[in-house]
Amino acid sequence: MTPNQYTPEEPITSIATALAPAALGIVRLSGKGCIELVSKVFSRPKALLEAPGNTLVYGWLLDTPGRIDEVMLAVYRAPKSFTGEDMVEIFCHGGPAVVMAVQNLMLKSGFRQANRGEYTFRAFINGKTDLTRAEAVKEIIDSHTDVSRSHAAGRLAGSLFEEIDSIKKLIIDTLAAIEVEIEYPEDEETIADSFDRADIELAARRLQTLADSWKGEKLYQDGARVVLAGRTNAGKSSLFNAILKEERAIVSDIEGTTRDWLESWASINGIPVRLFDTAGLRETSDLIEAQGVEISRSLVHDADLVLYLIDGIVGMNDEDRQFIEKCTEPLIVVYTKSDKGGVLGAEPLGEGVASNEVRARGGLSPLYCKISSKTGEGLSDLFAQIYGILTEGIAGSSTERTQAGLGSARQKEAVSAALESVRHALVSADDNYTLDSVVQDLEDALDALGEVTGDVTPDDVLGSIFANFCVGK
Amino acid sequence: MTPNQYTPEEPITSIATALAPAALGIVRLSGKGCIELVSKVFSRPKALLEAPGNTLVYGWLLDTPGRIDEVMLAVYRAPKSFTGEDMVEIFCHGGPAVVMAVQNLMLKSGFRQANRGEYTFRAFINGKTDLTRAEAVKEIIDSHTDVSRSHAAGRLAGSLFEEIDSIKKLIIDTLAAIEVEIEYPEDEETIADSFDRADIELAARRLQTLADSWKGEKLYQDGARVVLAGRTNAGKSSLFNAILKEERAIVSDIEGTTRDWLESWASINGIPVRLFDTAGLRETSDLIEAQGVEISRSLVHDADLVLYLIDGIVGMNDEDRQFIEKCTEPLIVVYTKSDKGGVLGAEPLGEGVASNEVRARGGLSPLYCKISSKTGEGLSDLFAQIYGILTEGIAGSSTERTQAGLGSARQKEAVSAALESVRHALVSADDNYTLDSVVQDLEDALDALGEVTGDVTPDDVLGSIFANFCVGK
Repeated sequence: MTPNQYTPEEPITSIATALAPAALGIVRLSGKGCIELVSKVFSRPKALLEAPGNTLVYGWLLDTPGRIDEVMLAVYRAPKSFTGEDMVEIFCHGGPAVVMAVQNLMLKSGFRQANRGEYTFRAFINGKTDLTRAEAVKEIIDSHTDVSRSHAAGRLAGSLFEEIDSIKKLIIDTLAAIEVEIEYPEDEETIADSFDRADIELAARRLQTLADSWKGEKLYQDGARVVLAGRTNAGKSSLFNAILKEERAIVSDIEGTTRDWLESWASINGIPVRLFDTAGLRETSDLIEAQGVEISRSLVHDADLVLYLIDGIVGMNDEDRQFIEKCTEPLIVVYTKSDKGGVLGAEPLGEGVASNEVRARGGLSPLYCKISSKTGEGLSDLFAQIYGILTEGIAGSSTERTQAGLGSARQKEAVSAALESVRHALVSADDNYTLDSVVQDLEDALDALGEVTGDVTPDDVLGSIFANFCVGK
Repeated sequence: MTPNQYTPEEPITSIATALAPAALGIVRLSGKGCIELVSKVFSRPKALLEAPGNTLVYGWLLDTPGRIDEVMLAVYRAPKSFTGEDMVEIFCHGGPAVVMAVQNLMLKSGFRQANRGEYTFRAFINGKTDLTRAEAVKEIIDSHTDVSRSHAAGRLAGSLFEEIDSIKKLIIDTLAAIEVEIEYPEDEETIADSFDRADIELAARRLQTLADSWKGEKLYQDGARVVLAGRTNAGKSSLFNAILKEERAIVSDIEGTTRDWLESWASINGIPVRLFDTAGLRETSDLIEAQGVEISRSLVHDADLVLYLIDGIVGMNDEDRQFIEKCTEPLIVVYTKSDKGGVLGAEPLGEGVASNEVRARGGLSPLYCKISSKTGEGLSDLFAQIYGILTEGIAGSSTERTQAGLGSARQKEAVSAALESVRHALVSADDNYTLDSVVQDLEDALDALGEVTGDVTPDDVLGSIFANFCVGK
């Protein structure tokens, strides 16, 4: 889909709420003449047509013959609306049959089904929002935890836009100073005194901070895959359930149970974690069981972190030892059933094994942890360890982010390109290149930053940004 | 829960849209001071506090520290609102994390979580709606097909209320005439000339029509259970999928696949049908398979209609014959694979078997049908047969209902009680009872009708009505 399919001003409609039984639902309309089109199937056309912007009009949507639903219409008049066009939001009852009947009535009344992200696209082309804020709309809707949401809300409020704008200003000011130098050269056309490094170095540092932020932001957006492994009866299901009971994530949209593994979203210290409870990993001759083991292995292989569970009463055996030795993914060894007097700490086995593992893994010691899924003992320590591993190498504490961070891989790419150009400008200055060469570098940097906010963004990039939105946004 | 828990005027909040990723979500607020409470966590408190009723105010919801979401607030001022109280509807982004953050902010800001149906209850006690319309809110949200929705919309618009009101008027007028007779008796105090039967007979007929409507309305609300049975390879899954492809109902909230059966909602000629695809029904020694067969049997037993499928190429065998003979549920025998030249019509077997079945079932012949799930041939005939069986004995064509119908078992009970009292009044008049006795009957009828609309409804009845609502309504 390219923005060419987003024909501006054409009246569009889409369902903006989830299609499941609920008290209320919303069908959204935007485009030229949309208020007039609705008035033709509304019980109080005059009230609607005369309604000022930002007001609500009560009435019935009517079909011939019959009534569709009792509704409240929110009327927005261009340019004071989300899209910048005339808009109507229909607040109807939330039953799927009702919401779809309203939507079908609109399709019959001259509206076209909106494409994904088409409302936000219109907001963008009508100058109501820049690209960082437009992308933040998608980010906030898709956020899995409250921390993710709060980062997205910051960008939605313009934190990233302002940071980019302020960096651009540093570059533009420098460019202006150089232009003066080129117009009125005091001596030959070199960089020597005419180039104030400080601003460009500051721009580079701030771009670096932005680029570094992406790793953490991505973690809060996409989440991490954490896999529970271990022998049968090691306590995997108990821990899985204990984590979900305390920390089930706000979004839990993964299909529940399969024969081979369970999965669900959890929020571990604010990080969205996709948690997998695997079948055993034991060698087996049973064909179906063998299939389960194969799937478990591939889940472990794709994990960002493996929690390897050992029954704290039974203790570690060779099978456990082999798994821990062979495992190349980040690993926490979790001794379970501490309420029943698990072995770790009670017997030296745990410690002894630990040092074995240190050797086996070439000095990379897995973390150890003692928990009881039943009493909750040790869970917060386990969460802290999980948090520590998942945020390793991530700049700053993303939980308490107050400065701007990046919201998409696209933004990261553009910011990295800008950073490279700015650095090149600094090197050119050091090497006493011509001012023209520095000017070129700084202009490249500005172009890249313009792509982030959408001042200069090719159509196909726009298309792919908005095509990732949900319908109704 | 009793209405005592619905403390009027107390500020309440609840999420009014489904908690799944979507463009928009709604958090609903009602109660005394609710606009002031929101203004304390809103970026533009002055604009909000000064907003007239039925207007929209743009701004941010703020927490300390941080921003929750960019929102639009719909402001309603008492008594011009759904509940009759001051109300605010918060239109936020539709991500579950956002909607829950907004809701949590409201809970922190002095709102209490609303009980089920509490908004509609407040609307009722504040005289904004009667009980038939209040119940229609639930009906329209829960409706599974467009026909169900349109019936509920009629009641929401007051069709039932008006019919009840008009019947009450017939009774009240008669009562008034009798009162005059009692006050100023021309001769002795009997019924003879003073009682105009016509009005009461009309009331009885209209009450009967209402009472008769419930069977059909219930079908459109609850739907019917239709079970696909037949031997392995008879084409059950193909038909299941073919029906869903053409007629999947608007709501499809049943968990998908199990090992033992599949089920989904479908809309068959407007009737919500819960469609089951069963495992085979064959005798087996395999324990797990036997369990499946047992479940299939119990699904068949609970069915409103069984579609027994026979591979049209292979034809009927003894197993099929036995099932058809033994089946006590309404049954349609469906010959499949007509595109490949199914036997029915091609060979006389079908007809011959039919007359056998007529004998076996004591004259109750199952319907026969020939279809191709692949080409769709015969499906509309099959649907017509299904529709015919499911609507058998249902008064009038419910699809094109223009007159009022009942919306709940509670209403049916009260209308039946009113009908009985009215009939008793007629009998009393025939038998020349005293006018007082007739008056008593008619007053009983009025009381029963008052329960339908909610003029006289005990607290516990109210409690059970609203407790069935969803939160946010």
